[in-house]
Amino acid sequence: MKIIFEKPELFHNFDEQAELIEKLLDIGTALSGTQELSTLLNLILTKSREITWSDAGSVYLIDHSDNNPKLLFKVAQNASLPNLSFKEFAIPLTPRSLAGYVALKSVSLNIPDAYNLPEHEPYQLDRSFDENISYRTCSVLVVPMKNRKGEVIGVLQLINRKINPDVAITAENAVEMTQPFSIWEERILRSLASQAAISIERNHLQESIEHLFEGFVRTSVQVIEARDPCTFGHSERVAELAVRLSQEVNTVNSGSLAPFCFSERQLQELRYAALLHDFGKVGVPEAILTKPKKLYSLQLDVIRHRFALAQRTLELECTQTKYEHLLQHSAQKLSSETECQFCKSLPELDTKLSESIAKLSQYWAVLLEANEPRVLAEDPLNHLRELAQMTYRDLDGQIKPLLTSEEIHQLLVERGNLTPEEREKIESHVSYTYEFLKQIPWTNDLKNIPTIAYRHHEKLDGTGYPLGLKFPEIPIQAQIITIADIYDALTAGDRPYKSGLPTVTALKILQQEAANNKINADCLELFKQRKVYEVLGHTIDVVMELA
Amino acid sequence: MKIIFEKPELFHNFDEQAELIEKLLDIGTALSGTQELSTLLNLILTKSREITWSDAGSVYLIDHSDNNPKLLFKVAQNASLPNLSFKEFAIPLTPRSLAGYVALKSVSLNIPDAYNLPEHEPYQLDRSFDENISYRTCSVLVVPMKNRKGEVIGVLQLINRKINPDVAITAENAVEMTQPFSIWEERILRSLASQAAISIERNHLQESIEHLFEGFVRTSVQVIEARDPCTFGHSERVAELAVRLSQEVNTVNSGSLAPFCFSERQLQELRYAALLHDFGKVGVPEAILTKPKKLYSLQLDVIRHRFALAQRTLELECTQTKYEHLLQHSAQKLSSETECQFCKSLPELDTKLSESIAKLSQYWAVLLEANEPRVLAEDPLNHLRELAQMTYRDLDGQIKPLLTSEEIHQLLVERGNLTPEEREKIESHVSYTYEFLKQIPWTNDLKNIPTIAYRHHEKLDGTGYPLGLKFPEIPIQAQIITIADIYDALTAGDRPYKSGLPTVTALKILQQEAANNKINADCLELFKQRKVYEVLGHTIDVVMELA
Repeated sequence: MKIIFEKPELFHNFDEQAELIEKLLDIGTALSGTQELSTLLNLILTKSREITWSDAGSVYLIDHSDNNPKLLFKVAQNASLPNLSFKEFAIPLTPRSLAGYVALKSVSLNIPDAYNLPEHEPYQLDRSFDENISYRTCSVLVVPMKNRKGEVIGVLQLINRKINPDVAITAENAVEMTQPFSIWEERILRSLASQAAISIERNHLQESIEHLFEGFVRTSVQVIEARDPCTFGHSERVAELAVRLSQEVNTVNSGSLAPFCFSERQLQELRYAALLHDFGKVGVPEAILTKPKKLYSLQLDVIRHRFALAQRTLELECTQTKYEHLLQHSAQKLSSETECQFCKSLPELDTKLSESIAKLSQYWAVLLEANEPRVLAEDPLNHLRELAQMTYRDLDGQIKPLLTSEEIHQLLVERGNLTPEEREKIESHVSYTYEFLKQIPWTNDLKNIPTIAYRHHEKLDGTGYPLGLKFPEIPIQAQIITIADIYDALTAGDRPYKSGLPTVTALKILQQEAANNKINADCLELFKQRKVYEVLGHTIDVVMELA
Repeated sequence: MKIIFEKPELFHNFDEQAELIEKLLDIGTALSGTQELSTLLNLILTKSREITWSDAGSVYLIDHSDNNPKLLFKVAQNASLPNLSFKEFAIPLTPRSLAGYVALKSVSLNIPDAYNLPEHEPYQLDRSFDENISYRTCSVLVVPMKNRKGEVIGVLQLINRKINPDVAITAENAVEMTQPFSIWEERILRSLASQAAISIERNHLQESIEHLFEGFVRTSVQVIEARDPCTFGHSERVAELAVRLSQEVNTVNSGSLAPFCFSERQLQELRYAALLHDFGKVGVPEAILTKPKKLYSLQLDVIRHRFALAQRTLELECTQTKYEHLLQHSAQKLSSETECQFCKSLPELDTKLSESIAKLSQYWAVLLEANEPRVLAEDPLNHLRELAQMTYRDLDGQIKPLLTSEEIHQLLVERGNLTPEEREKIESHVSYTYEFLKQIPWTNDLKNIPTIAYRHHEKLDGTGYPLGLKFPEIPIQAQIITIADIYDALTAGDRPYKSGLPTVTALKILQQEAANNKINADCLELFKQRKVYEVLGHTIDVVMELA
């Protein structure tokens, strides 16, 4: 067994000393600046090995995710076996392993030779690792990684302190070519390990908050979508399609899309913009969002009663006429036996009433037909115009229209079931979305979300809404979301009056939109070529003819 | 002018060397772990002065908030003038000041004597600072604080490198008792300053995300509240009241509230729970949320038409009877001149019709009266029960009830305007809120939000909803929110059928609730005593008699 150097040598010159200090400070700076966990763990291990001339090492983190805490073997490095492959795995948290002992006792272990451990110690080296890779672990330094509260969150383990950093260690030369770790190496390593622990915890905290934000956004989008069960999941699907299409844009090297290259942050921004593009629908009343026909059901009920009242009034008026004339007739009869005009016209009165009632019933049928959210044909349209002229006598004796101008206005909608005013209310969701998103204190990385979302109903030729912007004023991200939005609206079957179209038909309709300079033709081409729709599990199951 | 030591002395022993390295690493660890900006800036300045034996120093940050970047003088320390008071202020970012030069050129300045600066340099020391405090700045070390991208975000300035750390510096002894900063002090300081810069930026990033989350939550609450204009601002007010009441609870040292002491994090948790307590209202249809009377307006329209139809049918039936009898009568008259019973009953028929029409019109008045969201009196209630028995003959000849059972059910509501089913729908918002909040990946600090919000309509005696929990099962935070919620509902005038009550009346109603063991009496007492309602700008302007 070799002698342990209790005191390391002092630095011999200024530069050596300043360089080490700078290196240590740089490691600290790097640890503070690194956000990705495995990068950070690899960094702390690499730098610790570099400073201490350690041949190998590993980092463990304590996993408290269940009631049975474990040590996760996260990262391993071995300079002498550079091709060693490594997979993360868990070991029990017991004092029988070196790392477990350090984690549980919150102390360091500085072991000159791990194959010659005192027998009274609870910990022993598991030599099977060495045996599997034909290696020989000699000196070992194991330090706890403590957070600000002094709690151990992980363990840093260094193996084989080399005498010469340039020599590779083998099972054969390990004893000769390594030496124990010095006390001051141990002291420095303890500090570095704790600095790493604090960085890990800060990263974790930041990730938790980002995760919380993302979760809140997604859940509130779902809640708002649930108001209109027909659109459930739409925003999430649009986000998936839009991000995938943007990733495909990144791979394009020629043509109009070549200049665009979205960074991870820009993809994130676009994803949120897509996820939130319909958030403003919370400002559109459910009655409009879920309106199934042209008239609301209670409106139809009012009209049905009005038709009944009209019929009953006609019946009353007819009976009254007959009664009054009969009164007169009786009086006349008493004075003269001349032929009575009234008696002759009696059947005519009844026929007229029957005709009027039949007409009402025809008009009711016309109305029911026109109430459906279909494209209005010429015939019912003409009948509807006639119906608009119909009147009835109300209880107060006034002549009133059988249908109000508002009811006629609703029934005269030529496509779908929404009046221009209702359509405007629905379209105003884009502005609500913008008003909402504008108020949110986005971080710098996400600052374009309001603008991108605000443009998702604009068309390249200026026929979109709400601003009627043209091509160069519509950001490429919005153009991408537009394609995703239309595609999902067509295929999802999320409108009360139509079921989802097959992918091939949706693509043909989009193709038409592109041909009319409404949407970005190159993006659409990419959408088709790269089968972006497959992210939703869609496939094309018929032979397609695409221009 | 003194000689600058180009090389510092090396360490003379192991401990001194290890200690400095450990100290530097500890500073790094502290920087990584500090989250509050001014604490962090004071820390970097204190530690830098400690290591370098600097008498004084200051930290500047660059302010890019407008188009005219400035240097913010954030922190200043002077060991020899411990009582110096300091206020943050801005100076122009020009190369004429030492800090400005360092910030703009991204270089360090290591100046042996700031009163003997070469005249060709653009920077000069502003001696007015010294003159104001009777100080003498001699050696100065100014280093840039660079972020990960190498951008300068601030400047660290150290003044008067002392020969003996225990001696105070005066205007008189400054030249003798100080020396220039060494090159290696400069090198170490540059590293430390950049490590601080990275920590500052990370803190800033984290704050931005927290700010973003908070902004998103508040804005979406506002958007959801805007569906029911009557409740606008309610959640924000409840949050203010609840947080303030909790802060008051923290100051109570005796009684049932003494054990409760909410940390900043718990207050934050409670604030979010209060802010989100009505989020589930997004799942309640607007029609119910904003229902002004017992019947929806189109329903009343349907009934009005049905009454008209009933009247017209009565008129028709009367006329028909008269007509038919007249026909018979005419025939009889021809054969005999006996007195006609029908002619005698004619006025009676007309009277009966008039009576029936008058009755319909009375019932219509009863209905309009009952439709108001007031407490139903005995009289209209009896009339309503009569009305429920009324029938009319429909077009198809069938006898049908004048009011449907659903309409009667709605009109028979004894308090307010909601049927039990509608009330249940509104009350279900608590469960919606819970379902929503439960899905969100809250950080550990905020994990109780779903439970707290879920309990805000429970009552201490078990008569609340949705679970009917009793006192010990309702967290104190929920009890606090309940008081805030009821107080705001009473005073805000946010219900369609009532305007806001004055504070004194609201407190009396709450008092009643407390007396009935519905809400926490001690919390309410505190609410009154500490005038928690004043956070909303409310005052009590009448003499109050509180039990």
